[in-house]
Order: sequence, then structure tokens, then C-alpha cells
Amino acid sequence: MASYDDVMSLSVRRGFLWPAVDLYGGFAGFYDYGHHGVLLRRRWEDLWTETFLGLSDNYYLIDTTTILPEAPLKASGHVDHFTDLLVTCTKCGESHRGDHLLEALTHEEHEGLTTEELDEKIRELKVRCPKCKGELGPARPFNMMFPVGVGPTGKDRAYLRPETAQGVYLNFKREFEALRRRLPMGLAIIGRAYRNEISPRQGTYRMREFLQAELQIFFDPATFADHVPLDPLARTPVRIAWAAEKHEPTAQDIAAKDLVAQGLPSWYVYHLVHVQRFYLDALRVPREAFRFAELDEKERAFYNKVHFDVQVRQESLGGFKEVGGVHYRTDHDLKGHETVSHEKQSVTVGTTKLIPHVLELSFGVDRNVWALLDLGLMKGERMSLRLPPRLAPVTVGVFPLVNKDGLPERAEALFATLRKRFAAFYDDSASIGRRYARMDEVGTPFCVTIDHETAEGKGVTVRERDSQKQIRVREADLEITLSRLLAGEASFDVA
Amino acid sequence: MASYDDVMSLSVRRGFLWPAVDLYGGFAGFYDYGHHGVLLRRRWEDLWTETFLGLSDNYYLIDTTTILPEAPLKASGHVDHFTDLLVTCTKCGESHRGDHLLEALTHEEHEGLTTEELDEKIRELKVRCPKCKGELGPARPFNMMFPVGVGPTGKDRAYLRPETAQGVYLNFKREFEALRRRLPMGLAIIGRAYRNEISPRQGTYRMREFLQAELQIFFDPATFADHVPLDPLARTPVRIAWAAEKHEPTAQDIAAKDLVAQGLPSWYVYHLVHVQRFYLDALRVPREAFRFAELDEKERAFYNKVHFDVQVRQESLGGFKEVGGVHYRTDHDLKGHETVSHEKQSVTVGTTKLIPHVLELSFGVDRNVWALLDLGLMKGERMSLRLPPRLAPVTVGVFPLVNKDGLPERAEALFATLRKRFAAFYDDSASIGRRYARMDEVGTPFCVTIDHETAEGKGVTVRERDSQKQIRVREADLEITLSRLLAGEASFDVA
Repeated sequence: MASYDDVMSLSVRRGFLWPAVDLYGGFAGFYDYGHHGVLLRRRWEDLWTETFLGLSDNYYLIDTTTILPEAPLKASGHVDHFTDLLVTCTKCGESHRGDHLLEALTHEEHEGLTTEELDEKIRELKVRCPKCKGELGPARPFNMMFPVGVGPTGKDRAYLRPETAQGVYLNFKREFEALRRRLPMGLAIIGRAYRNEISPRQGTYRMREFLQAELQIFFDPATFADHVPLDPLARTPVRIAWAAEKHEPTAQDIAAKDLVAQGLPSWYVYHLVHVQRFYLDALRVPREAFRFAELDEKERAFYNKVHFDVQVRQESLGGFKEVGGVHYRTDHDLKGHETVSHEKQSVTVGTTKLIPHVLELSFGVDRNVWALLDLGLMKGERMSLRLPPRLAPVTVGVFPLVNKDGLPERAEALFATLRKRFAAFYDDSASIGRRYARMDEVGTPFCVTIDHETAEGKGVTVRERDSQKQIRVREADLEITLSRLLAGEASFDVA
Repeated sequence: MASYDDVMSLSVRRGFLWPAVDLYGGFAGFYDYGHHGVLLRRRWEDLWTETFLGLSDNYYLIDTTTILPEAPLKASGHVDHFTDLLVTCTKCGESHRGDHLLEALTHEEHEGLTTEELDEKIRELKVRCPKCKGELGPARPFNMMFPVGVGPTGKDRAYLRPETAQGVYLNFKREFEALRRRLPMGLAIIGRAYRNEISPRQGTYRMREFLQAELQIFFDPATFADHVPLDPLARTPVRIAWAAEKHEPTAQDIAAKDLVAQGLPSWYVYHLVHVQRFYLDALRVPREAFRFAELDEKERAFYNKVHFDVQVRQESLGGFKEVGGVHYRTDHDLKGHETVSHEKQSVTVGTTKLIPHVLELSFGVDRNVWALLDLGLMKGERMSLRLPPRLAPVTVGVFPLVNKDGLPERAEALFATLRKRFAAFYDDSASIGRRYARMDEVGTPFCVTIDHETAEGKGVTVRERDSQKQIRVREADLEITLSRLLAGEASFDVA
């Protein structure tokens, strides 16, 4: 059970991530990544790309600008509707997010209120400024996009994109033409998005600059189900928390086919199953720490027709927290762009001409990284980070037992060989115990030590992070042994 | 010899990159990447990371925010000095970059002029507005950073970073502490930077949002040379164009040791050699299309003491163009941050306490991608893109000769095997000739075709992009043959 401070302090100490610009007193809502954090994040990204692009050979990569001019964001609705309610204290001038003020008092979520409803609630509950206890002013909508002036006069109004999705929609037809002209077509993007959060908080959970990994699937609603057959997955239990029961902590396991019987489109359920597999099998999130949480109409973004959050339980953040979402956005976005740009967004596939609908699989990369740190962190006599081996920044540590008797030379030679194949890290500083401890905290699954017996031809020791067990392996067998351990083809005991 | 239009049209047609937001009439200075562009860029990035992180086991990755508050950018000098001179027409109101106005007339570069010098030149040369021939107003400095207001009042002034470097400097001490506490230490970052260019132009050459790949090497000037011995490279010829001779198109080959004799630090020359190797050997840029161009004091950025541009000749851009730079930034940046933040930036290594100096290897990723497209594009009867195999978005195309007689099933099975190991693309549409042509234009080095003889056990044909030769290969040997061809261990004739 890791607290917020446990995760953050390990993260800073071992170079995963930390609050940005601390040299100048900090920069709320911004985080920087160190070497180990970049590696962990990249392994997550690679696994994500492999998993979701692997769903079809008609899914591709795309990358678009982070600055967008006003017109497409007007068309998408973000200029008018991408707002939070802001409440400013009449005494100290501090601004607060309205729903968070209520949440702090009632421990319930209050998303989707109108200005009037919020003002009413504030009066009713007698909410005062949390900072100075002063009287709060009236609520007003606050657009969360960052405006940017482009060009020499700065008059060309633009914004930092609030989501990666819009840039992808703007390019749908270009990619459709350049590639196979078939539906469903998927376009995956990993990139930054920006939201001027009124009160950023909880580490990487609510940031002002963050990374999204999103797959936009463009499809024909009449035929999508034929392309993603649910039959082979019909009995898969899916962990669901319904909107009506969301204050109930227990999720139910519901068979995929029963979710369809309850009204969800089968292609939607198909993707729930694949997202769940990604979390349970690839990221190794414990089943009880995972769920899909249905969002009701008030909570859903204005463009989503069906919306389940992907949630992972994280003690450091106080329970289940959103790390992604599965959003049926209908043809809202492409239609909007067609209307405002007057450029046709319809395509012809076979004999059908249509504006495709969109299913969006959306993930917060930083939130996923935080979840991995939270779930992996084990406290006790020694601290260790139980990352799945494929996600660990360093796969194998290589140490000479002592810095003499020719051991460093042997160890360096072995390191030179191993680094060609594995993410290896050489360490000859401090005691062997401290070196193991350091690797445990970085999440390194295996460490190899060269000792005096190695020089006698008796192999090296391989130590496993989680069991702390050690085995001796012949140098000639080391690479294959490590490969098999990493692939899960051998367990440590019988290696 | 590819023209600008050749490169751009191939790029759009085959999904590499294109002007952003064309749906809404375009967005000058911004480009989006399609599937093949993302893959080409990623392969470049991977090769860059492998090459430059491979220089030392004390070089690491880092990633920092793209928005920075004002204080560090004040300290770095960007708030006061990161300016171009802007000249506005008194008649039509159009703004122009002063040095570009002069350049267009004189065909010489005019960087580094003061406002007064520029006004004087404009009078002297009788320069008028290129758009309406009106009279030009006085020059004024224009800061190229994009301001961003952060927080609910928008009063916390911040900027989109104009270079990735500053975020790295802000984190130097954190990474130093979290890692080995040794110098030289390198921190590599690949990320976006933003410049509000007055007149963006020439495709991805002068963009407002672009990707940089930079390695910041922090070192002790007294000992750096010992860590990067030039001796084994002393006779390597380095292609140099001196500042005094920069309008002379021919670069000289100068031995590394002679560059040291002419006053360049040996550690600086060491890195020139490695950068040159990256271009000539890894990216396979022809020797005559590569050079380092020395910048004189007026042209250098205000923070650089020694500065050579990395230039690649590109017909589409009219000649040699900057794709990177090797910058000795001294201790300018860390000292600046220490002075303004009052946080000590010195570290102790052994018995020496110092503020490290910085050598920056800086590369424009989009410019490198463009250079690869320019150099690779071959026109003639058929168009093809001769990318080095390691950089090609698709490594192997897989086709059934015809869509009957069981060939598609065999081809799909083969594709399923190959895609586990190679970036493979399956195509069963249109004639075989058109499929080859498509792959040639994407830069795919090899295509495999399954025909009726395959069904008779006579293997598949493998076709090479550049020679258009075809050989027959047994299915059982295909993977190893492709691997050897890609690794350069076999040439196509003897495969």
C-alpha cells in the first residue's frame, strides 16, 4: 500500500518523474521525466502501440500539431463548451473549480452542473473559500484551453490542443486516401495535450500538460460488428461499475454477451474486452484493481454517446482513478468539421457513401505511468518496484562483486555483450547490497553478479528482484536463460 | 534531382507529411505526419538515440515540459535576446523578416544585424515591400517565443519553449543526483520546440512547431578530452566549410588532428567526427552532400562559443541547408540559472567543484526527415525513394500475384509470419506492377510475391527496390535471407 508521498519520493530519488521547474519554485501542473521515467513510459507506449495497432492491419500511426487554429476547435465545440466552472473568492481573489469545492465537502462527484445549479449548491451548503473562509463570488464558465497568438501580429488566434483527437479528425481523409481506402480504419497518436486546469493536483493525475495515447477508429456503424466478431469472446467476464452504482466500490464481472444483451453495441464490448486484456495481461494489473466505470449523461463529455472510464485502483490517489476511456463519439466530429469547413468528410466504401462514426480508445500516458509506480511499489524492510519485466526501465543489472582481482574487467566484458540484447546497466559503486537495493527500486527484474567463482569457470549469479533468490548460471547459458525468464518461458526456480 | 514540389507531392501522396489544417485553408509553418512519415521519423529517432547514447554509458534520456515559466527563460536570455528584426510595410501592413528582405535582393545572408544597421541597409538598397511595393517602416525586434498564460487568471506568464535545451539544464542536478554523479554526463531529449517565425517557408525547413533531438553533454573542460580520446580518429577527414569562405560551395576535407592544430578543442573535433559518421554511415548521405559550416560571431546564437552547422545539400531547398549543429555553450546556461534562481548549479566530482560546461549536439528532426526524402527521391520512368533499409517505413511488402487459386491464403500466412519480425505490409489490390510502384514510392527495399510456382514448392520471388532485380528464394530460407540483406551481410546478387 503506497502513499502519495511514497510514490513521489521514490520517483524523484530514482529519476522517474518530478515536479517541473523546482529550481524556480515550481510550476503547478507540470512534471518532468528523468531517464528511468522516460524508459518506463516508452515501454508502456511500445506495448500500447503493439497491442492496439495489432488489432487490425488497417490501423496506422499519425502525428499532428499541438497548436491548432480557432476554426476547427470552434467546429469541434471546444471553443464554446470545453469549460469548467470557476468560482472566485470575493475576499482573497483565489479561484477554485466549483465541482471540487463541493466534492471536498460532500465526498461525491459533482460534474456537469450548470452555473445556476452550482451557485444554488454553494448557497445551500454554505461553502466558503477554502483558503481564507471568505465569501465566494458567482460561478462563471472558464475555458480550459490555452490561447496562443500566431504570426507577427499575434492576431491569428489559436490554441494548444486540449486533446490529440481533433488533429486526427482533420487528417482522416488524407490518410484514408494515402492508405487502403477501407473501413474500419484506425489512426493512433501518442502526443501532448494541454488543459489550463484551475487547480492541478494529485501528481500526474491532473496536469496542465500531459501525454495522451489515443486510437481513433473510423467505421461504418452498419458493418463494424462484422469486422470485430465478439463471438469468440462472448463469455469473457468484463469488470463493470454501472453509473447508477458508482459509489459502490465493487465492480461486477459481466459476460461480454450479457453486456450486449443490456444494450451496448457488440463492437463496443469487443473493444472493452481488448482494453481489459491490455490491463490485466500486458500491464499485469490485479483483476480487483481494474474496472470500467460507466459515465452518466451529465458526466460524459459533450461529444460522447457511450462512455466508460477505464479505472485502476491506486492507494496513492485514494482509490479507483481514471487512466483511460472508451468513447463512442458518433459522427459528431467529422460532421462538425464538414459543416464549418465546407469540405466533404464522407467517403465511399463499396457502394456505401457515409461520414464514418468514431470509436475512441483514449489513455492518459502519465496516469498509466503513475498507476504502474503505485501498483508496483512494495514497502517493507526493503523497498522494491515490482514492474512487469517488459516494462522495467532496466532489464538486467551487471555488477562485479568487488573492484579488484580482475572482476571489473570480466563484468565489463559481460556487460558489453548483454547490452546488445537487453537494457543493461553496469554498476561498480558501493556495496553489493546497496547496488541490489538500487536496482530493486528502479524495478530491475534480474541482476547478474560476477564473483571469484566466475573466474574459476563456475558461472555467474543471477538474482531475481521479487523472490531475492539467487541461482548460478554458466556464462555461456546466460543470454538464453535471461531471455527465457523475461519471456515467461521459465520460472526462476527451474531456470 | 528532386524539386521542392516533387518532394512535397510524393510526401502527400504516400502519407509522409503535409501542411497542417488544410481543411480550413492551411496554417503556415505547421505540418502533420501521416503513417509513413511517423515511421520514417521514428526510425531516424531510434538510430539517433542508439548512435549518440551509444557514445558513453553515462548518457541518458530525459523529457521535460514544452511550456516554461518566464523566469528561467529570462535567465537563459531568451526573453531579452531571442528576437528577429521585423519590418512592417507602412502601406499594406504586411510584416517581413528584415534579413530575408535583404537576402532576397542580394542573395547573401544578413543575420546578426542591429536595428540601426538593418534600417541603414534598407535605405541604401532602396528595399520596398515585396507584397505591395510600399515604403517599409523602421525595423523593430520581435521575440520569437509564443507567450502562454497559465492559471485561472492567465497572469502567470509563460512561453512555449524555443528549444528543448533549457528544460534539460533545469534538471541537470536532479539527474546528476539520481544517476552516477559522474562527468561527462549526457542528457538526450527528443521533443517539440516552438518559434513564432515571421515568415515560415520551405516546407519543414522553417516551421513554427518542430521536433528537436538534442544531446546536452555536461563536462569538466579540464578533463573532457581524456574521456573522448581523439587519437584513434586523428586522421579521419572531416568535411569543413570555413566561415570566411562560406559562399564558396566546396567544403575541404581536413584531418581531425589538423582541426585541433587550427585551434578547435580536441573533444569538439571528436564529436564532429561522430556526427559526420552518423550522416555518412548510418544515414548514408553522400560525402559530397555533407559538410560542417562554421558560423562567425554575428551568425552564432548569443550563447555559443564554438558553432558549426551540420549541413546537407538538398536540391529541393536550393543547396546546402542546416539540419543540425554542434554548439559549445560554455557554462552560460547553468551559470545563468544559478544567478537568477539562487540555486547552486555546481557539482563536486572527485576533488573538483565546478559548474559544468555544455556541449550540445542539436538536430532538427523534421529537417532530417525532409533531407532523407530529398536525397532518396529518384525520378525517371518510375519514381522511387531510395531510403537506407533501416530507415524505410515498410521493410517488406507481401503480395499474392493474383487473387485466386489459393495464392491470397498462402500470402496472408506468410505475411503473418513475416510481420512478427519485420515491418511488413500486405497488399492484394491492383496489378502487381502498381503494387511494386507503390512500395517503391514508400521506400520499401524488398517485396515478396507469392505466385503459382510457390504453390508448386518453388519458393517466392524477392524483388529489390533499387535494381528491380528479382530472385527466387525458398520459403524456408526467406526470413534469414531478408535478415542478411537488411543487415548488409548479403548483396542482392549473391543472396
